[in-house]
Amino acid sequence: MGKDKKFVQEITDMEKDFAQWYTDVVKKAELIDYSSVRGCMILQPYGYAIWELIQQQLDKRFKETGHKNVYMPMFIPESLLQKEKDHVEGFAPEVAWVTHGGSEQLTERLCVRPTSETLFCEHYANVIQSYRDLPKLYNQWCSVVRWEKTTRPFLRTLEFLWQEGHTAHATAEEAQEETIRMLNVYAEFCENVLAIPVVKGRKTDKEKFAGAKETYTIESLMHDGKALQSGTSHNFGDGFARAFGIQYTDKNNELKYVHQTSWGMTTRLIGAVIMVHGDNSGLVLPPRIAPTQLVIIPIAAHKEGVLEKARELKERLSAIVRVDLDDSDKMPGWKFSEYEMKGVPFRLEIGPKDIENNQVVLVRRDTREKITVSMDELETRIPELMDSLQRDLLEKARAMRDTKTYVARTFDEFKEIITNTPGFIKAMWCGDEACEIKIKEETGATSRCIPFEQEKISDTCVCCGKPAKDMLYWGKAY
Amino acid sequence: MGKDKKFVQEITDMEKDFAQWYTDVVKKAELIDYSSVRGCMILQPYGYAIWELIQQQLDKRFKETGHKNVYMPMFIPESLLQKEKDHVEGFAPEVAWVTHGGSEQLTERLCVRPTSETLFCEHYANVIQSYRDLPKLYNQWCSVVRWEKTTRPFLRTLEFLWQEGHTAHATAEEAQEETIRMLNVYAEFCENVLAIPVVKGRKTDKEKFAGAKETYTIESLMHDGKALQSGTSHNFGDGFARAFGIQYTDKNNELKYVHQTSWGMTTRLIGAVIMVHGDNSGLVLPPRIAPTQLVIIPIAAHKEGVLEKARELKERLSAIVRVDLDDSDKMPGWKFSEYEMKGVPFRLEIGPKDIENNQVVLVRRDTREKITVSMDELETRIPELMDSLQRDLLEKARAMRDTKTYVARTFDEFKEIITNTPGFIKAMWCGDEACEIKIKEETGATSRCIPFEQEKISDTCVCCGKPAKDMLYWGKAY
Repeated sequence: MGKDKKFVQEITDMEKDFAQWYTDVVKKAELIDYSSVRGCMILQPYGYAIWELIQQQLDKRFKETGHKNVYMPMFIPESLLQKEKDHVEGFAPEVAWVTHGGSEQLTERLCVRPTSETLFCEHYANVIQSYRDLPKLYNQWCSVVRWEKTTRPFLRTLEFLWQEGHTAHATAEEAQEETIRMLNVYAEFCENVLAIPVVKGRKTDKEKFAGAKETYTIESLMHDGKALQSGTSHNFGDGFARAFGIQYTDKNNELKYVHQTSWGMTTRLIGAVIMVHGDNSGLVLPPRIAPTQLVIIPIAAHKEGVLEKARELKERLSAIVRVDLDDSDKMPGWKFSEYEMKGVPFRLEIGPKDIENNQVVLVRRDTREKITVSMDELETRIPELMDSLQRDLLEKARAMRDTKTYVARTFDEFKEIITNTPGFIKAMWCGDEACEIKIKEETGATSRCIPFEQEKISDTCVCCGKPAKDMLYWGKAY
Repeated sequence: MGKDKKFVQEITDMEKDFAQWYTDVVKKAELIDYSSVRGCMILQPYGYAIWELIQQQLDKRFKETGHKNVYMPMFIPESLLQKEKDHVEGFAPEVAWVTHGGSEQLTERLCVRPTSETLFCEHYANVIQSYRDLPKLYNQWCSVVRWEKTTRPFLRTLEFLWQEGHTAHATAEEAQEETIRMLNVYAEFCENVLAIPVVKGRKTDKEKFAGAKETYTIESLMHDGKALQSGTSHNFGDGFARAFGIQYTDKNNELKYVHQTSWGMTTRLIGAVIMVHGDNSGLVLPPRIAPTQLVIIPIAAHKEGVLEKARELKERLSAIVRVDLDDSDKMPGWKFSEYEMKGVPFRLEIGPKDIENNQVVLVRRDTREKITVSMDELETRIPELMDSLQRDLLEKARAMRDTKTYVARTFDEFKEIITNTPGFIKAMWCGDEACEIKIKEETGATSRCIPFEQEKISDTCVCCGKPAKDMLYWGKAY
């Protein structure tokens, strides 16, 4: 029983050491393994299956909004990366450089893509000639590399999986519409699929993407009160188009620059799911991204008819949910712990008495509520229960987020909150980058976004006391 | 109409210049674009959509045979690559080396994965302890890099997309079963999905994968008589397990080495589809991998009711096929050429007379056969017609392959065939690598495989005249 032992091991309580709790969950739920490559992780079958479900449901949304998938090279010649000034300044310090092919030294270094704006721009310059070629609505699923100093599974790794949308439009208005459309797709996806509520807003100039005119973001709040940037959507205006010469002739035969956007989401979403829904027994997965939505565990499996019934149920339920049956010879208690660690939304217990009573016992992962369901009603009850678990996770996460969202009117209040009750802080800002820098230096909190939903908390900047321009969300962030 | 112009341009006839015909099709069907990275290609939406359909249908087969997807890092430390002697000798000369991260020089070079045996082995050594952990049946979808000198779209590129299966088993027998199982999955996929018949066999020692005990292959034949290795499945025995220390305790508590396999298919399959089914009007796609299976082209679209009917048909047919409607203002003739170039299996013409007669005209891409179908029978007739086109493509490809498969009993015959009528050559072999080398040097043909279906063509080796051991397939290859 060597392999079972780990399920007796307790994981660290999140209240005691959140970072250790996170690492324990990531490892014990078998989401990832470490490799000998510093800062790179191995996505094990269970972790990758979650990513596949995220991919499928995002990809469907991209296609419904008219986007097409493409694949660009993973290498970018140094000269191409340098074409847009702000962009290269932002990324050059953190790229991996290929200098040799086989035994031959390259005449020009290639970087492993940290993001693919430059490649898409080069391609767009090549394929866009007339207004008839617009808009171009492309997306790519791939991995990218950023040479980070410190790394954590899912949240910050040297290599990570993501999607990057890249679009080109005839007008500034269309580009802006696209930028917001995709931000809304991201927000809807986070709420309805991941059960994570988000704050939508715009990044300050200091926090925006290298080369962007505007960066929009969705920000979520983890259980420990830290913020996580969960997706970003950038409006580039015509900056890249001018740098790369992406022009088209309009209906009046005039030569114009295109307006561009890009937007991305990554495997860090899995980190968000862990830190928003998880508990001291491990992972808690929303049904929509759970590789196994329901696991059948036979009780007193040696008794006549139990295993047969369990197998029959698996067959029957596979038409409505992603179902698994654990008919191994481990004790039911071991199995309960194992599937709780893995965050499986429901377990179904079936024993001799249940068979006698024509019923099963369903146990919800999040609340441990036990629900007895008649064998005849499984097809209607199980989808209902899945939906209500999915809904409840979102509501619980929203309540948690709201509880940990504070208002600061003075810098002293701000400091007190960040020290004693970490979370989102809503506070006014004068618009001066100096205040943003001062707040970061003195508290460790960064501006998360200028939310679309503004509230007037006071008339003056929380830092300098000068007249306020906007309300911002602030917080310490992953 | 700037963009339409290209569809007047004729492509090179394949009989005149097959290589140019291939390049023309690849570009004009908008499968790929070139980038400024030497030897890397951009998969445009149409090319990538074909790959997505290949992926989905292969992935389904992998999952049905019990495999799970994972994701490994894209980098391999030099010391890890060197652990298996034959493997590093085979791959080191053609890998890309990362030497710098940001501005810092790495203490150990990392290669961009050319294949991931070493990473899987390191992980397996970590997660396999007992017989209960076996078998491990993993697969990965990713891109890999091999620093090739000369490249051609899909067939040989510096970076390409592929899947690599990596499995670990308790016994040599199980590993051998797995190797053959996946070879059969590949062969069945090629025939039933890509409509490409293949020869199954074993590679000679000279042609096997670096580090493998045995390499099995499926070989297909292109229209120009050249062979294409379309998928390989390797049995590693316990070679990698010994190099990486992958051991497990069996039921008797004895420490044993695992036995491993790997198997892969790549985007070069798209090259095979082009070269097996294409004609002088462009691409011909088997319906199962056609992003658009049927395109609706309105005739006399300005006439009342035509566009409405076309739109209604698109809506209606989207329940049974991947359907597109071209309601642009281009002339129908332009459109016919465009979708022929793109290899769309069927076009549906609908004009005022058709509406009057409650019918549509379907035109098959391969034969240009026009089929009048009643509006009331579309739901039954279209799937039938798709199936028959799919089936006919396979039969036509099989006939082509059989016609171009020759028998050589003497070296003179061999040379004459390879010069005058390129194709597969079946010829006997003594088993001596010297003959293999001589044949390659003097004719340019390589041994494709030792087919499972052996025939006794003569008693002596086609090259040296000594007693023959096996019949081999030979041919010039991509």
